[in-house]
Amino acid sequence: MATPVKLYGPPLSTAVSRVLACLLEKDVQFQLTPINLSKGEQKKPEFLKMQPFGQVPAFEDENISLFESRAICRYICEKYPEKGNKGLYGTNPLAKASIDQWLEAEGQTFNPPSSVLVFQLAFAPLMKLKQDETLIRQNEAKLSKVLDVYEKRLGESRFLAGDEFSLADLSHLPNAHYLVTATHRGEIFTSRKNVGRWWDEISSRDSWKKVADMQKSV
Amino acid sequence: MATPVKLYGPPLSTAVSRVLACLLEKDVQFQLTPINLSKGEQKKPEFLKMQPFGQVPAFEDENISLFESRAICRYICEKYPEKGNKGLYGTNPLAKASIDQWLEAEGQTFNPPSSVLVFQLAFAPLMKLKQDETLIRQNEAKLSKVLDVYEKRLGESRFLAGDEFSLADLSHLPNAHYLVTATHRGEIFTSRKNVGRWWDEISSRDSWKKVADMQKSV
Ligand SMILES: N[C@@H](CCC(=O)N[C@@H](CS)C(=O)NCC(=O)O)C(=O)O
Ligand SMILES: N[C@@H](CCC(=O)N[C@@H](CS)C(=O)NCC(=O)O)C(=O)O
Repeated sequence: MATPVKLYGPPLSTAVSRVLACLLEKDVQFQLTPINLSKGEQKKPEFLKMQPFGQVPAFEDENISLFESRAICRYICEKYPEKGNKGLYGTNPLAKASIDQWLEAEGQTFNPPSSVLVFQLAFAPLMKLKQDETLIRQNEAKLSKVLDVYEKRLGESRFLAGDEFSLADLSHLPNAHYLVTATHRGEIFTSRKNVGRWWDEISSRDSWKKVADMQKSV
Repeated sequence: MATPVKLYGPPLSTAVSRVLACLLEKDVQFQLTPINLSKGEQKKPEFLKMQPFGQVPAFEDENISLFESRAICRYICEKYPEKGNKGLYGTNPLAKASIDQWLEAEGQTFNPPSSVLVFQLAFAPLMKLKQDETLIRQNEAKLSKVLDVYEKRLGESRFLAGDEFSLADLSHLPNAHYLVTATHRGEIFTSRKNVGRWWDEISSRDSWKKVADMQKSV
């Protein structure tokens, strides 16, 4: 691969850091262009050409421009099967179907309550916004139920989609990282035996440690 | 294919009807087992073995059991490439990446406001539940913004992911169908020139007409 792929967005964004983790896991060279969200750069006409909803990340490779973090991750795995972690998106159709299933569970079931909690508990205080206690309580209850299902699943297999670390696990890192490290509610993960073991294992991968460092150095 | 695949859930469910549309589009034989949601059959231990979150649909094929409607659709397309609509999930990596992108946009951006509106406007009255006017207004505003992006996109290409009907378009049918046919707010689609043209075209496919018939005959 001669020219690196291009990723647009700040590493502090959960959706951007999902793609960063994937690029590092796959050992695909990239060039990162930060987009300043507080200055509204994601709503500028030039950026909207790449991401029509005005959100980060946006992504470019040779002959394609993409948005939606999970679609970008899938593309990276399909385009560069021989690079880095070769099993990240499975090496046979059954493994891939299981990864897709848990990646959808992350996007549809884990992400909605988690991203509300990340915003309310980690970002709102920094932005001096009032926290919404009702919303926090409702979403903690929802996330608890989701993690009860994960607890059972992770008692049966080492990772969500099976015995190997995959895109499905990776996709949980951005929100889980903020909840464990930047709020007082980390025990929602760590108090569950299997979820806690899983969190320790996935968050200590080199790829994610590099993303966390990039977030700190902003 | 000797034994038909198995799908569990009522056709009236949007997530179930997404998979039905895919099975019909791909001309894959299936056996449908209805699950009675009002009797709570989706929370029974037997069902939870297939769908640990206690929601429909669940799906079984020879050697795999899956949940999450969009993951099931992807699996069907990957497993039966030569059946029915061969291009439903693309025939090359770039087409597939574009389909994944718009399928994610559906799941992440179109579905959240649409499913709230479907519940509030179509189901709540049937269930004699009080409608939440604030929630309705907020989600109509969100959906309008999403459809403004679609309007522009559908001015550039016939379907969301390009010039062919794909899984990305299909995935919008269940919620859009209820909003257009079972509420008074259908003009959110039909008043937009390109979105209206797209809706007419995707909803008049034989596959979707069959799903709509199955919903009526329940
Ligand atoms: N579903 C999208 C979500 C993108 C998203 O929510 N991006 C946020 C940052 S994590 C953003 O751009 N926020 C600024 C804005 O909406 O103006 C994806 O996964 O790429
Ligand atoms: N993300 C899931 C959503 C499944 C879902 O929300 N199913 C609803 C019906 S459309 C359900 O089972 N509701 C009953 C319940 O939650 O108890 C999918 O796409 O399969």
